[in-house]
Amino acid sequence: MDQITADTKSTEKKGVLRGFRRSTGIGAIPGSLDRGPEAIPDRCRITRISFNVDNADEEVIDTVGELNEDVPAERIYWFRVEGIADTQTLRDLGEAFGLHPLALEDVVNTHQRCKVEDYGDHVFMVIRLPLYADDGNLTTEQVSLFLGDGFVVSIHEGCNALEPVRDRILWARGRIREMKADYVAYTILDTVIDNYFPVIEEIGNRLNIIDEALESGFDHNHRFEIRNVRSDLLLLRKTIWPQREALGALLRNDCPHIQESTRTWLRDCYDHTIQLMDVTETYRELCADLRDFHLADVSYRNNEVMKTLTIIATLFMPLSFVAGFYGMNFHYMPELSWRYGYPVVITLMGLIASGFFLFFRRKGWIGKP
Amino acid sequence: MDQITADTKSTEKKGVLRGFRRSTGIGAIPGSLDRGPEAIPDRCRITRISFNVDNADEEVIDTVGELNEDVPAERIYWFRVEGIADTQTLRDLGEAFGLHPLALEDVVNTHQRCKVEDYGDHVFMVIRLPLYADDGNLTTEQVSLFLGDGFVVSIHEGCNALEPVRDRILWARGRIREMKADYVAYTILDTVIDNYFPVIEEIGNRLNIIDEALESGFDHNHRFEIRNVRSDLLLLRKTIWPQREALGALLRNDCPHIQESTRTWLRDCYDHTIQLMDVTETYRELCADLRDFHLADVSYRNNEVMKTLTIIATLFMPLSFVAGFYGMNFHYMPELSWRYGYPVVITLMGLIASGFFLFFRRKGWIGKP
Amino acid sequence: MDQITADTKSTEKKGVLRGFRRSTGIGAIPGSLDRGPEAIPDRCRITRISFNVDNADEEVIDTVGELNEDVPAERIYWFRVEGIADTQTLRDLGEAFGLHPLALEDVVNTHQRCKVEDYGDHVFMVIRLPLYADDGNLTTEQVSLFLGDGFVVSIHEGCNALEPVRDRILWARGRIREMKADYVAYTILDTVIDNYFPVIEEIGNRLNIIDEALESGFDHNHRFEIRNVRSDLLLLRKTIWPQREALGALLRNDCPHIQESTRTWLRDCYDHTIQLMDVTETYRELCADLRDFHLADVSYRNNEVMKTLTIIATLFMPLSFVAGFYGMNFHYMPELSWRYGYPVVITLMGLIASGFFLFFRRKGWIGKP
Amino acid sequence: MDQITADTKSTEKKGVLRGFRRSTGIGAIPGSLDRGPEAIPDRCRITRISFNVDNADEEVIDTVGELNEDVPAERIYWFRVEGIADTQTLRDLGEAFGLHPLALEDVVNTHQRCKVEDYGDHVFMVIRLPLYADDGNLTTEQVSLFLGDGFVVSIHEGCNALEPVRDRILWARGRIREMKADYVAYTILDTVIDNYFPVIEEIGNRLNIIDEALESGFDHNHRFEIRNVRSDLLLLRKTIWPQREALGALLRNDCPHIQESTRTWLRDCYDHTIQLMDVTETYRELCADLRDFHLADVSYRNNEVMKTLTIIATLFMPLSFVAGFYGMNFHYMPELSWRYGYPVVITLMGLIASGFFLFFRRKGWIGKP
Amino acid sequence: MDQITADTKSTEKKGVLRGFRRSTGIGAIPGSLDRGPEAIPDRCRITRISFNVDNADEEVIDTVGELNEDVPAERIYWFRVEGIADTQTLRDLGEAFGLHPLALEDVVNTHQRCKVEDYGDHVFMVIRLPLYADDGNLTTEQVSLFLGDGFVVSIHEGCNALEPVRDRILWARGRIREMKADYVAYTILDTVIDNYFPVIEEIGNRLNIIDEALESGFDHNHRFEIRNVRSDLLLLRKTIWPQREALGALLRNDCPHIQESTRTWLRDCYDHTIQLMDVTETYRELCADLRDFHLADVSYRNNEVMKTLTIIATLFMPLSFVAGFYGMNFHYMPELSWRYGYPVVITLMGLIASGFFLFFRRKGWIGKP
Repeated sequence: MDQITADTKSTEKKGVLRGFRRSTGIGAIPGSLDRGPEAIPDRCRITRISFNVDNADEEVIDTVGELNEDVPAERIYWFRVEGIADTQTLRDLGEAFGLHPLALEDVVNTHQRCKVEDYGDHVFMVIRLPLYADDGNLTTEQVSLFLGDGFVVSIHEGCNALEPVRDRILWARGRIREMKADYVAYTILDTVIDNYFPVIEEIGNRLNIIDEALESGFDHNHRFEIRNVRSDLLLLRKTIWPQREALGALLRNDCPHIQESTRTWLRDCYDHTIQLMDVTETYRELCADLRDFHLADVSYRNNEVMKTLTIIATLFMPLSFVAGFYGMNFHYMPELSWRYGYPVVITLMGLIASGFFLFFRRKGWIGKP
Repeated sequence: MDQITADTKSTEKKGVLRGFRRSTGIGAIPGSLDRGPEAIPDRCRITRISFNVDNADEEVIDTVGELNEDVPAERIYWFRVEGIADTQTLRDLGEAFGLHPLALEDVVNTHQRCKVEDYGDHVFMVIRLPLYADDGNLTTEQVSLFLGDGFVVSIHEGCNALEPVRDRILWARGRIREMKADYVAYTILDTVIDNYFPVIEEIGNRLNIIDEALESGFDHNHRFEIRNVRSDLLLLRKTIWPQREALGALLRNDCPHIQESTRTWLRDCYDHTIQLMDVTETYRELCADLRDFHLADVSYRNNEVMKTLTIIATLFMPLSFVAGFYGMNFHYMPELSWRYGYPVVITLMGLIASGFFLFFRRKGWIGKP
Repeated sequence: MDQITADTKSTEKKGVLRGFRRSTGIGAIPGSLDRGPEAIPDRCRITRISFNVDNADEEVIDTVGELNEDVPAERIYWFRVEGIADTQTLRDLGEAFGLHPLALEDVVNTHQRCKVEDYGDHVFMVIRLPLYADDGNLTTEQVSLFLGDGFVVSIHEGCNALEPVRDRILWARGRIREMKADYVAYTILDTVIDNYFPVIEEIGNRLNIIDEALESGFDHNHRFEIRNVRSDLLLLRKTIWPQREALGALLRNDCPHIQESTRTWLRDCYDHTIQLMDVTETYRELCADLRDFHLADVSYRNNEVMKTLTIIATLFMPLSFVAGFYGMNFHYMPELSWRYGYPVVITLMGLIASGFFLFFRRKGWIGKP
Repeated sequence: MDQITADTKSTEKKGVLRGFRRSTGIGAIPGSLDRGPEAIPDRCRITRISFNVDNADEEVIDTVGELNEDVPAERIYWFRVEGIADTQTLRDLGEAFGLHPLALEDVVNTHQRCKVEDYGDHVFMVIRLPLYADDGNLTTEQVSLFLGDGFVVSIHEGCNALEPVRDRILWARGRIREMKADYVAYTILDTVIDNYFPVIEEIGNRLNIIDEALESGFDHNHRFEIRNVRSDLLLLRKTIWPQREALGALLRNDCPHIQESTRTWLRDCYDHTIQLMDVTETYRELCADLRDFHLADVSYRNNEVMKTLTIIATLFMPLSFVAGFYGMNFHYMPELSWRYGYPVVITLMGLIASGFFLFFRRKGWIGKP
Repeated sequence: MDQITADTKSTEKKGVLRGFRRSTGIGAIPGSLDRGPEAIPDRCRITRISFNVDNADEEVIDTVGELNEDVPAERIYWFRVEGIADTQTLRDLGEAFGLHPLALEDVVNTHQRCKVEDYGDHVFMVIRLPLYADDGNLTTEQVSLFLGDGFVVSIHEGCNALEPVRDRILWARGRIREMKADYVAYTILDTVIDNYFPVIEEIGNRLNIIDEALESGFDHNHRFEIRNVRSDLLLLRKTIWPQREALGALLRNDCPHIQESTRTWLRDCYDHTIQLMDVTETYRELCADLRDFHLADVSYRNNEVMKTLTIIATLFMPLSFVAGFYGMNFHYMPELSWRYGYPVVITLMGLIASGFFLFFRRKGWIGKP
C-alpha cells in the first residue's frame, strides 16, 4: 500500500492534472523499466489463485522462481501482483510468462490510457480504477491485465478493488468456477467498471445539491463547487472514453483468447461503459448549464444591486442639492427671508421624490423588488 | 402502479439527475437480479393476449406455471407484464421463455439506455417512455420487450401507455390482427415513441412563452424557466439518441424475427425518432439562443440603469458642490456679500446643467431613453 | 390557398417553433390519414398535365375516377394536387396509383423532414419550400412528390411555387419536353430549391444592416434583430440539412426511376443544396460573431459609462467634502476667521482637482473619451 | 478588369456577406447563361498559348471561330479567357470544346464553391483566388478551369494572377514545357493556392498586433479589429474547406485526364491546402481566445473602475455626512459651542478614513492598484 | 546553431503565430529550393554514423561527394545533417540519394505539418520538435527524415535533440545495434516525441499554479497567464494532431521500408502521441474551465464591490440629505429653534440607518461579507 501513498504525496496536483506523468526520461531506451534513482524498490506481493470446477487454492508466492512450480494443468491460474515498484520482480515475471517489454514498460508507467493490445500469445489490457485519494480528490489507479492461455496476470498498486473477484472464485459464487481464464479477465474488468457507478452517482448528488442551492438563493461558493465537479467529470471522461474504445476493440477483434460465450458478457461490460460515458457527457452538459445559470444569476443580482443604488442616488441627489442650495450663505437670497420659503421647498422636494418614484415605477424598477 | 410511485419517492432528484441509478452493488455477480434488501417484492400483473385473424382473447395469468398452459399454436401471443419488483416471477418467466440472464438484469435495472440485442432465439429491446412524474417533472420509464417466435413479452412498471395496443388487438382496429408477432412489437414501439410528440410540443409551447416574454419585457424568472427547459431537453436527447441507434441497428441487422414487410413500418418508426431528435436538437439551440439573448438583455438593462445613475450623479454632483461651496462659513468671502452673487451662481448652475445635458445628448445617453 | 391561411392562424408560434406538429394522436393507427374532427375537408384541386415532345395538355380533374381516363400511353403525366385537407380524395389517389399508406400519412402530416423513400414501384420525396407567412415570419411548406413509371404526382398546399414548371412544360421552354418523368421531378426539386436563394440573400442583407449599424453606433434593438436572424437561420438549417441527405441518397441509390442522364442534373441540384448549407452555416457563424461583438460593445459601453461616473464622483466628492467641512457651524474654527482661509481653500480644491485629473490621465481614463 | 470593378461596386457588402449571389432567377432554366437585363455584355479577351518542349506561342483570339484554327497537333494548348460577361462568346466556346451547359452556368455564376466535376471528356474545376477589393476588404474571385485532352481552358474575371504561369510557359522556367496539359492545370491551381499564403500571413500579422496591444494596454478599438479578422478568417475557411474536398476528390478519382506523374505534384498542392486550413483553423481559435481575453480584460477594468469609485465614495460619504451634520443650524447643538468640538470632529474624521483604509487594504482593493 | 537564432530573430511573433511562413514567393516554381536573397547560405554540418552489431563509426563529411565514399555494404548508415540554409549542399544530397524535389522543398520550408510520404524508394517524414526559444516562448522546430534501403537521412536546424540516438548507437545502449535502418528512424521519432512530455508537464504545472491561485484569491494577472497557456496548448495541438495522422498512416501502409518487428515499436510511439493528444485536449478543456471560472470570479467580485458601494451610498445619502435639510438657512424653520429638534433628528437618523441595515440583512448583503 506504501506505493500509492508515495505516489499521492510526490505530487500535490489534483484531478486531471495529476493524471499525467512519464517516469522514464527523454531518450530513455524504449522498453526499459528504470524509474530513476528516486524510486524505492519495494517488494511486490504476488498471490496465485488456481481453480477448477471442484476446488480453488490461494498461495502467496515469494520469489518469481516459484511461479510455475507445482502447477497441475487443467486448472485456471490467476496471478495477482500488488505493487509495481519492484522492477526486478516484474522483469522476472515478464520473462516467466514471455510478456512483451513494451507492455511491461506500460505496467510501470502508471499513467497509461486504457487500451487493449494483442501480442499474439497473450493480450495486454490497461484499465483504470476510480478512487478517492487521501485528500478527498478523485483520482484513478491503473490496473494492468495479461490474459494468456489458461492464466491471467493482474498487476496494480495496492488497492483492494479486486477482492470481490477473489472471493467469488474462492467461495464459488456465481458461475466463475465453471468458466475459463477469459471469464476471470472479464470479471476483473466488470468489477473495475462497477467502481465507476458510485463515483458517478456521488457526482450526480453534488450536481443536485448545486442545482437546488442555485434555485433557492445565492451563494458565492457555487462557482468553486461547479468547477470541482467539472474537473472530476473531465477526469472521468478522459478515463472512460478510451475504455470504451479498448472494450470495443476487444469485441471486434477475433482474439483467440476470448471465447464466444464470454463475448456476450463482455458486451454487457461494454454497454456499462457506454452508459457511463452517456451519463458523464450528460452531467458535463448539465454542469455547463448550471455554470451558465450561475453566471446569469450573478448578472441578474448585479442588476438588482445597481437598481437599488440608482434609485437611492437618483432620489436623494436632487433633494440634497435643493437642501444644499438653500444652505448657501449669500446675504441677498430673497427666498430665505420669505415666510413661505420653507413649506414651498418641502413641497418641491415632495414633488421631486414623487416624480422619480413614478418614473421608476414606470420603468418597472420599483414594485417588484 | 405502486412501483413507480415508490421509485419517484425514493429519490428527490429531478430531470436527468434522476435518470441514473444502478441497483446491483459493486462486485455483484453479473446476471443476478438481486435488488438489495430494501426492495419490496410486489407481485407483478401478467396478462396474456392471444389472437389470430378471427378472434382475440385476454387472460390474467396468476402463476408463471400457467403461462404456457392452454396454448394453441397458430396464434400470436403477447405477454404483458406490469411491475418489475417481483424478481422471482421474472426469474421464472426468464426460464419459461429461455431469456438470457443479462437481459433480465437489464429489465430490473430500469435505468438502461435504449438498445436492441439479438440473443439468437429472441430479440431483446429496451425503450423508454416519457412521462410527467407526480411532482410535474419530466422523467422516463423503461419498457422492455422480448420478441421471439410467435410471442412478444413486454415488461414495464405500472404506466398504462400500452392500452392503445391492447385495444387495437382486442377490437381489431387497423391491420394488427392480420400480422405476426413482429408487428405487435412494432406497434408497441410506435405507441411508446408517439408519447414523445406531446412532450416535445409542450416544450415548444414553453419556449414560445419564454420567447414572447423576453420580447415584451424583463422578468428575472426567465432564467429559471430557461434552465428547466434545457434540462428537460437534455433528458430527451439522452433518451432519444440511443433510441435512434437501437432502431437503426434493428433495421440494419438481418434479424430473422423481423419480417421484410414489417421493416417498412419500422423504418417509419425510425423516421419518427429522427424527427424527434431533429426537433430536440433544434429546440436546444433555440433554448441556447434564448439564454444568450436573455444575458444580452440583462447586460443592456445594466447599461440602461448605469446610464440613469451616471446622468443623475454627473448632473447633481457639480451643482451640489457649488451649493456647498457657497455654504462655507468663512468670514471673508466677498461673493457672499456681493449683491449679484446669488443670481450669478444660479446662472452658473444653469450653465453647468445645460452643458452636461448637451454632453449626454451628444453621447446618445439622453433622447433615446 | 385557404389551407395555409388556416394553418398559419391555428398556431401563433413563429419560426422553428412553428415547424413541428403531428396531427394524428398517440396510439393512432399507423398509415391512417385522419386529422381529427377540427380539420375541414376542403376539396383539393387536381390538374393533369401531359406532354410529349410535340405538344402538351392541361386538364382540371374533378373526381379521382377521371384520373386515368383518356390516357394515351407514350406521354409523360404530371398530376398536380393542390390542397391536402380532403383526405378522401388523397385516399382514392393513393389507391389509383398504388401509393403506400405510410407515404400518404406523411403527405398529410405536413411537418415532415425532407426525405426520399423508394417503395419499389414509385419513389416518394418530401421537400420543403421556404416562404414568408402573412405575419412576415419565415416558414416552410411541404411539397410531396411521387415519381413512378411515366408519371409524377406533386401534392402540396396552396402556394404557386410550381407555376414556372407548368409554364416551362406548356410553352416548351428549355429541354423539359424532350425528357422523361424523372426530369419533371428534377425540375420541380430545382424550382423549390431555387426559392431558398432569395431568402438567404434577404438574410444576408439583414446581417449586413446589423453589421453596419454595430460599426457606426449603439442601438439596443440589435439584440432583437440578431435573435430573429439566428432563429430564421436555425429554421433554414433544420430544413436544408435533411434535404442534402435526401438528394445525396437519391444520387447514391440505383433507383430505376432516375435515368443516368438526369443524374447529372440532380447532381447540380445537390450542389445547390450544399452551397445553401454552406452559406447558412457561414451566416450562422457570422451571426454568432455579431452577437458576441454586440455583447463586447455593451460591455465596453458599460465601462465607458462607469468611467464617466467615477471621474465625476471622484472629482466632486472630495471637493464637496472640503466645502461641507468649512460649512460646519462650530463656534471655534480658527480657519473661518482667518483672513486667507478662503483663498487657501480655493487653492486646495484646485490642487485636489488637478491631482485627480492627472491620476485619471495616467490611467488613460481621460484624454481618449 | 472592368468586370471586377463593376462587381465590386454593385454590392456594398463586405467579407463573407459579399460571397453569395445567384444571378439566374427562381425557376430559371437550368444550364442557361442569362444574367438578367442589367448585365452589360463586355467582350472577353481570349489568349491562346500553345507549346511543346521546344517552343511556345501566344496569340490573342478575336472570335471563337478562330479558336481551333491553325492548331497543329502534338502541342499543348492553354486557352486563357479573361472576362465572363460576354455570354455569347462563352456559349460559342462551350460548343467549340463540347463543354457541359451546367459547367458553363457555373462559370457565369461566380459565387460557386470550389469543386471538381468529371464530365467524361473533360474535367471542370472551380477554384477561388483571394484578393483585396478596392475598398481594402478581403474578397475572392472565381477561376474556372476545363482540362481536356491536350488543352486547358481557364476562365476568370480580370485579375492578373495567372501571369506567372504564362511567363513560366513562354520563358520555359521550371519543367512545365516538358509536361502535358494536366501539369498546366496543376500549375494554375498551385499558383492560385500560393496567393492564399500572403493573405494568411497578413492576418497573422494583424492578430499579432492585436495580441501585443491587448498585452500592453486597453484600447476599445480592438473589438472592431478582432471582428474584422474573424470575418476574414470565416471567408477563408469557407473558401479553403471545399478546395480541400475538391483536390482530395481529384486525387482519389481515377480521372484519365490526370497522369500518374502529375498526381505527386497535385498531392503537394493538396498538402498546401491542408496547411492553409490548419493555419486558418488555428488562427480562428487564436482569434476566439483573443476575443475572450479582451472580454475578460474589459470585465477586469470594469472591476478596477468600480473599485476606485467605491473607495472614493465609501471614504467621502461618511466624512461628508459628518461635515453636513455639524452644518445643521439647530439653535440648540451643544457640540457646536463646545471648545473641543472642532478638534474632536477632525479626529473622528481621521479615524473614519483610517478605518476604511484598513478595510480596503484587507480586502486587497488598495495596495495593488 | 546560427540558423535557429537567425530564424528566431527574424520574426518577433510568438507561439502559434510564429509557426507559419512560406519562404518561396507566389508563383515560385514548385520543387525549387530558393529562399530569396535575404537567406545567408551557411554551411550545413553532415555527420555519417555507420554501424553493425559489432561496431559503430562516426565521421564528419565535408563535401557531399564524400557521402558515398568508403561505404561497405552490410552496415546501416545514418546521415545526420544539421543546418538547412545551404541549399546547394541539400540539392547535392538530394541527387546523391535520389530524393524527390518536393520533399527537399519541404525540408527547406521549415513550417510543414508533420507528415509521412512514400516516394517508392524512400519514405519522407516530417516531425516537429518542441523547444523553448531564447525569449522563453514555446516554439517547434522541424526535423525531416528520409528512410531508404539501409540508410536514414535526418535534416534539421541546429538543436541537439538527437544526441541520445547518436550516443545509443555509438555506445551500443539498448537493442539499436542489432536492428535495421527502420529502427534508427523509429528511435529518432521516439526521441523527438519524448521531448513533448516535459513540455506538457510544464504546462500542467502552470495550470496547477493558476488553479491554486484562483482558489485562494484574486489576481488580475491570471488572465494573461491563462491566455499564454491556451496559446501554448493551441501550438501543441496543432503540432501533435498531424503527427498522430502521420504515424497512423505509417502503421496502416504496407510500406516496405518498415519491417514487421519495428511496427510493434512504432505502435508504442503512436500510443505516446495519442496520449499526448489526450492530455493536450484535456488541458485545453481545463484551461477553458479555469478561464470561465476566472470570469465568474471577476463577476462575483464586481457584485461584491457593487454591494459595498450600494450599502454605503444607500446608508449615507438619506442621512446626508437630512443633515443638509437642517443646514438650510430659511429664517422661518420652526424645528431649528425647537428645543428637542436636534435629539429628534439624531433619533430619526438612527432609525433610517437601522432600517437600511435590516433591509440589507434581509437581502443577504450584510452578514456574509
